[in-house]
Amino acid sequence: MSSAHQVFDEMPKPNSTPTPMPPVDLSKYSKRVLLKTVLDRADGGVGLVDQRVVVGGWVKSSREMRKDPLPATQPPAGGDAKPVTGGKDVRCVEVFQSRIPFLRTIIKVFGGNTAHSHNKEKLESIGPKPAYPAISILQISDGSSTISLQVMVDSSIAPPSQLMPTGTCILAEGVLQKPSLQGKHAIELKAERLLHIGIVDQESYPLSKKGLPLARLRDCAHFRPRTTTVASVMKVRNGLNQASHTFFQNHGFIHVEVPIITATNTEGFSDVFQVSTSKHSTKEPKKEAPVSMDDTENISLETIKRSIVEKAKKVEELKRSDSNKEALDVAVQDLHKTNLLAAELEARLKSKSKSKQKSKSKTDDGFFSNQAYLTSSGSLHLESCASALGNVYAFGPRFQADKSESKKHLAEKWMVETEMAFSELEVDHILFLLKKLISFCFLIFFKHFFCCVFQDAMNCAEDFLKFVSNWISENCYENLYFLSKRVDRTIIDRLNSLASTIFEKITYTTAVEVLSKVTSKFHLNKQLELTKWVEITASTNKGSVVMDRTFETKIQWGVALTEEHESYLVDEFYKKPIIIYDHPKELKPFNVRLNDDGKTVAAFDVIIAKVGALIRGSQKEERLSHLTKRINELGLRKDQYEWYLDLRKQGTVKHSGFNVMFDVMVLFSTGLNDVRDAVPFPRHHGRVHN
Amino acid sequence: MSSAHQVFDEMPKPNSTPTPMPPVDLSKYSKRVLLKTVLDRADGGVGLVDQRVVVGGWVKSSREMRKDPLPATQPPAGGDAKPVTGGKDVRCVEVFQSRIPFLRTIIKVFGGNTAHSHNKEKLESIGPKPAYPAISILQISDGSSTISLQVMVDSSIAPPSQLMPTGTCILAEGVLQKPSLQGKHAIELKAERLLHIGIVDQESYPLSKKGLPLARLRDCAHFRPRTTTVASVMKVRNGLNQASHTFFQNHGFIHVEVPIITATNTEGFSDVFQVSTSKHSTKEPKKEAPVSMDDTENISLETIKRSIVEKAKKVEELKRSDSNKEALDVAVQDLHKTNLLAAELEARLKSKSKSKQKSKSKTDDGFFSNQAYLTSSGSLHLESCASALGNVYAFGPRFQADKSESKKHLAEKWMVETEMAFSELEVDHILFLLKKLISFCFLIFFKHFFCCVFQDAMNCAEDFLKFVSNWISENCYENLYFLSKRVDRTIIDRLNSLASTIFEKITYTTAVEVLSKVTSKFHLNKQLELTKWVEITASTNKGSVVMDRTFETKIQWGVALTEEHESYLVDEFYKKPIIIYDHPKELKPFNVRLNDDGKTVAAFDVIIAKVGALIRGSQKEERLSHLTKRINELGLRKDQYEWYLDLRKQGTVKHSGFNVMFDVMVLFSTGLNDVRDAVPFPRHHGRVHN
Repeated sequence: MSSAHQVFDEMPKPNSTPTPMPPVDLSKYSKRVLLKTVLDRADGGVGLVDQRVVVGGWVKSSREMRKDPLPATQPPAGGDAKPVTGGKDVRCVEVFQSRIPFLRTIIKVFGGNTAHSHNKEKLESIGPKPAYPAISILQISDGSSTISLQVMVDSSIAPPSQLMPTGTCILAEGVLQKPSLQGKHAIELKAERLLHIGIVDQESYPLSKKGLPLARLRDCAHFRPRTTTVASVMKVRNGLNQASHTFFQNHGFIHVEVPIITATNTEGFSDVFQVSTSKHSTKEPKKEAPVSMDDTENISLETIKRSIVEKAKKVEELKRSDSNKEALDVAVQDLHKTNLLAAELEARLKSKSKSKQKSKSKTDDGFFSNQAYLTSSGSLHLESCASALGNVYAFGPRFQADKSESKKHLAEKWMVETEMAFSELEVDHILFLLKKLISFCFLIFFKHFFCCVFQDAMNCAEDFLKFVSNWISENCYENLYFLSKRVDRTIIDRLNSLASTIFEKITYTTAVEVLSKVTSKFHLNKQLELTKWVEITASTNKGSVVMDRTFETKIQWGVALTEEHESYLVDEFYKKPIIIYDHPKELKPFNVRLNDDGKTVAAFDVIIAKVGALIRGSQKEERLSHLTKRINELGLRKDQYEWYLDLRKQGTVKHSGFNVMFDVMVLFSTGLNDVRDAVPFPRHHGRVHN
Repeated sequence: MSSAHQVFDEMPKPNSTPTPMPPVDLSKYSKRVLLKTVLDRADGGVGLVDQRVVVGGWVKSSREMRKDPLPATQPPAGGDAKPVTGGKDVRCVEVFQSRIPFLRTIIKVFGGNTAHSHNKEKLESIGPKPAYPAISILQISDGSSTISLQVMVDSSIAPPSQLMPTGTCILAEGVLQKPSLQGKHAIELKAERLLHIGIVDQESYPLSKKGLPLARLRDCAHFRPRTTTVASVMKVRNGLNQASHTFFQNHGFIHVEVPIITATNTEGFSDVFQVSTSKHSTKEPKKEAPVSMDDTENISLETIKRSIVEKAKKVEELKRSDSNKEALDVAVQDLHKTNLLAAELEARLKSKSKSKQKSKSKTDDGFFSNQAYLTSSGSLHLESCASALGNVYAFGPRFQADKSESKKHLAEKWMVETEMAFSELEVDHILFLLKKLISFCFLIFFKHFFCCVFQDAMNCAEDFLKFVSNWISENCYENLYFLSKRVDRTIIDRLNSLASTIFEKITYTTAVEVLSKVTSKFHLNKQLELTKWVEITASTNKGSVVMDRTFETKIQWGVALTEEHESYLVDEFYKKPIIIYDHPKELKPFNVRLNDDGKTVAAFDVIIAKVGALIRGSQKEERLSHLTKRINELGLRKDQYEWYLDLRKQGTVKHSGFNVMFDVMVLFSTGLNDVRDAVPFPRHHGRVHN
């Protein structure tokens, strides 16, 4: 069809302007022009006036305009002389036929089932013609652009009552023209033919009402991408996906599909999903045959055994009676045969019951040989690949059966994970102190030098976030702009600021110090140790600090930082993204590398405005003795980690990595507050509808 | 560290040539130079002679060379005058210190815990020094290149017995030099310092032996990427992943993360996995405290109730005795208070037992409100997104609890799926006949015109395969070349041929006709209908056809084509990739669009050499009545498909799509025969080890 249109367009048009028009880009794999190729042009589509196109989409809004009665067939406003009503079904075949007349005879010979004939749909006859002539003015969207196209459909083509409900799908052929009515549109389509109408039942269609809140839209996850807001979110999500792959591929990382079904309960979480097979069927249950083959065979075996006894008796009798020798021979042979048959039957039954038992025991054990879980993290498997391929990453779904109601976590979440061999997290404490002492200007001179202070994985995480933010700002600008109007005005600024700010790197201990200072007025230690305090504040770009904060969770060394703490540090204290490293070992998974102090581990969290912790990373424990000690301490099941410990026994390597909560990154980029709005089909406690 | 090396390199070297050397590209997020940046250069690395680098990797093979006793400290062959033995631990901090002497004092003041001191690992003391001076000649690989780097390590740095086992991990600092021994290497590294050694226990290391068959390697999935073959496969897999994303993103498709956990048993398969939560913990079971809080509260409630009875008695007594009024008042007040306390305690216990019951019943029902499955196909959810966003695609894991032993299918497989709105599969039968009649030359002229004959999804599938084949031929050439030497010589030719051949498109009926003709000698219909037969062969580029074929499964209309049939059609009959379309409706899922003949559906399979069916596509049924009829016919559970039927009720659209068996594509591209070798951690019946 697309090609047919090209052929069509090449035909001389009597009323068209003599200058050649730039052709419309056709959608390659559907019979239509994507709306973005018309609407997202710099001229808003004005340069395409008079072009004949096929467009498809769903009605976003509509109104009806009565018109004065006119003759039924009236020349259209566009350059083409075809009648508006009905519209002739011009297809490539017809053009071909009209040009090569001798082919017509051949085609007629093969006749019968032509695509042309079985494709002609009589859409005109779907509804009754309206009582009065009118024009349906439809705003349609096909999901490719945030802007809608205005389509004018005469009531002689299709009744307005059929077209106007929100959500109606149309595929319309027509001519682009300058707007016939005043409005914000630069161009509109005058429909000449409707190739498809997908009607809507306004009563039951959940999106009939305008401006539904996002929470209501969650109940119809299968329809909600038809709203421009959700469509924009999905396109930003797509952009983030593409940007993530681009970043890692640009740096030579290899994508690995880590397994979803695992035997290792990945990081020792207790709330995991189990996987099992079932005898469940989607089909209605069928009644089983009352007698099985086995039963029949059992019965026949018994009959045979009984007949053997009888036959043996007969042989004995014949032997005793010394009668006919022939009769005895026959009887003996018969007994022998029956014995053989019985043996065969018995063997068959035995092997059957064995295999039955076997299959039964397998069903009991499940499909796999041991208990299988849904993975909660791909990091262990990534470590295995990093210990061979160097730098690897994974992008996939991870699972946690967490029943808590959280706006940032789902049972099924997508994660970007990475692992780098020969990569360490060590922090040079001398240089950290030097940084405090030497003036900022002096540092700029040695900036390149100082990049090595906080190493490898942390740098990679920071670079990743900056790259991704930049990327979507450049490539998803229209969607971000739309979302900034509808959801959150600050998203574009926030992305730009993330891309340009150098992250503040602080230890967990410093974070606790800052937080306990802030709350010290209210807690036990009322005396401010001013000297130390000034030192901490001096390292920020902030002169004064609000000192009258209270937090719900009292802060002390060893306690996990809450969202409230993190938000205070990022939004109020440092006023920029922070990386908190060197956490107490109790707060991190068993496989994080123990620091030399024996209390903290080489882990880091990247905390950013609005969403808090977005990336969690760590250097993994490469020393076998330390790792087994930690597994024992935590009482984890050693048998599950045998293969993982193998990596430390055979050619162990220092390595580190991090994981990005992809769904949370979507929240950050779109301004949404609930992760259930950022995932196409969210799964959480109590919810798996479709 | 990486920056430190740059600083180091900038220092004047007494023996180096005066011409400036091009610096080695440093790996951005680890302290080393990737081997590919040295070995995959056009000059094989010769231009980097005399450069100081840090490299890491695992030993692939090794040998030992005794050397004549020499004085312990001997100037190295490279341009640097540093002694070989031990090697000075030169770090950025030291360089910094040496350049800015006044800082030394400051550093000393802060002293104590410096990164420098706690980082200095005494690797030299790990093993005993060998009895005789020797050099370990190691071939190491870090996974970035198919070529290994030769590293020479003097026994004074580390004993050969420690370094030489295959699989040992080393991080070595040294100088690149021209090979000291004759061999195929263009360059080698003279190690001056070993920053890390990850030893190997040769007895238990599964890769100690050379040339293990792939089937043996499956038992150690966590180590096997260390073999160049498996590493190459994983890199080709990564290339295919990248190419797939690139293709769809280039064409404006939006990536959608379809859910893995679904309530809809996606295509009516019976062998699905179920998802459930469990009380299972990875921790060893702990003994519970013998008395719980509830018990304590129960006990105290009883005590209180007893005391109420006593107190009430006392009040009665006091009232009867008409004694002290004050005493009575106190007793009444006391009784009242005790009553209140009892009521409060009772209420607390009740609410507790309720919530207990609730949580218990929730555990019984499982985590979700209804039964949850692991998805076997994302296509239903993709349809929902296509019905709003236009063209969408998904890349993710899909599951099927298929117990059959197959070399092409796993329980967990990765798929690329796509769905396109306004996209149809109709085939113009007239043009198909014309194609047969009009000569080939004539057709070339109308090639563009004929592209529209087989439409949309089929074209997209063909373009996709061609793009991806081209892409990996260009971007993964080294790995393909390695695999062509080790696994299958024909892979590069096969990829090139796939990229350049126009696929043959035939109906299922034609395929059956061809196959039954071929076997007609042996089956019932012994008379050849020569006229029709010639017609079919004429449409192929092949004059003669081998007529003496037998197939295991007898071919007749309505039977699913087996791998044997498909292989015959592709490899022997058409000798090019084929697309078979219009299958009997019984062979395809319930949601494929019924053709006008009422017997066939608008589905297609792309069959290619070596692997058979690689892509399966179809136009989906957009007509509500047809779809519900089909669901009824197959006896599927309607309640699971309610949301899916909604899409037909509200703004339905014609749409089609396809899915690519990604793992099978890896087989095609790498020449492997078993999909378990093409997946990092394969999961199949009876297997989930790690």
